[in-house]
Amino acid sequence: MDKLKKQMDFLIEIDKLKSIFRQSRLADDSRFEDDAEHSWHLCMYAIILEEYAPEGIDMLKVLKMALIHDLVEIYAGDTYLYDVEGNKTKADREMKAADKLYSALDKQGAELRALWEEFDLCESPEAQFANCLDRLQPIMLNYLTKGKMWLKNSVHKSDVLERGYRLVNYGHPKIVEFLNKILDESVEKGYLLP
Amino acid sequence: MDKLKKQMDFLIEIDKLKSIFRQSRLADDSRFEDDAEHSWHLCMYAIILEEYAPEGIDMLKVLKMALIHDLVEIYAGDTYLYDVEGNKTKADREMKAADKLYSALDKQGAELRALWEEFDLCESPEAQFANCLDRLQPIMLNYLTKGKMWLKNSVHKSDVLERGYRLVNYGHPKIVEFLNKILDESVEKGYLLP
Repeated sequence: MDKLKKQMDFLIEIDKLKSIFRQSRLADDSRFEDDAEHSWHLCMYAIILEEYAPEGIDMLKVLKMALIHDLVEIYAGDTYLYDVEGNKTKADREMKAADKLYSALDKQGAELRALWEEFDLCESPEAQFANCLDRLQPIMLNYLTKGKMWLKNSVHKSDVLERGYRLVNYGHPKIVEFLNKILDESVEKGYLLP
Repeated sequence: MDKLKKQMDFLIEIDKLKSIFRQSRLADDSRFEDDAEHSWHLCMYAIILEEYAPEGIDMLKVLKMALIHDLVEIYAGDTYLYDVEGNKTKADREMKAADKLYSALDKQGAELRALWEEFDLCESPEAQFANCLDRLQPIMLNYLTKGKMWLKNSVHKSDVLERGYRLVNYGHPKIVEFLNKILDESVEKGYLLP
């Protein structure tokens, strides 16, 4: 019963992910998206776009990665992709957050932490697929909200491509083609700086 | 490219799940939980409590079910577990919603719809495990928010057990034991009517 109690305490603690807000607006521009919603949506991207994943990929691993990939932000906070200063301290803050978060679950926590580190390293095909979609999902929200946050932060198309290199490098050619169309249209419509 | 366009349109459409609010408060009682957050949390329950699932269960199927189980609510709305009138029309409303939602994705939509129907039928071990956790998660939120919504709706312990029969019937003995402790404590503290 002690083990189950620890597991339930963990499930209660991570409720806080629902209060970590990101720099993406919902598609209807009503408010900012939170990390729990983003993680759910990322899983849906993985399910729906599975056919564009590397062949023989372990989808259970992809989904687990997507579900936990932002948990460290409960303690480390969300770091905006285009925040240069914040990104300098991100790795250190997130490592400390992982220590705190996953140590509560012993062996099971160590396994989840390894999965998060694999996601972050972006070397395995599962991590590459998950990272690719993790870039695509907020780009779509930016596009749908007419670039509100891109414009607010003076983001150029080259910034999106640079920060989204994991998407460009590891994405299926059809996904990358789709991305380019979205970005070109965004520049044309004035959602994104050229 | 037409197929990918349809898939992306589906991923955009389901962003609306983030605006379907439930009758559960977040653990910190700051606001109501939405369906996307609930679906993410349900997946986390499945991952963390996997050892209490029926042996040989297909966890990928469980996660997919958990991710999509409330999508019909985008059109059918959330029906509160203790809303007697609403539950009379729920099946019909959700069936029409499924027609609208899943027809947009052809064969892939049919597969997702079949998965949702399997969840709803609650006969396969995967569906039973997912349904069991789908009951446990809001009970925990009610408990953590000192029964705010239970008290508002005059919910008795017997109501929770009756509406939660899938949890009581299909849950691992340790989970059911844990549930009973939570409910007894809730009655004792005045969060739930005896």
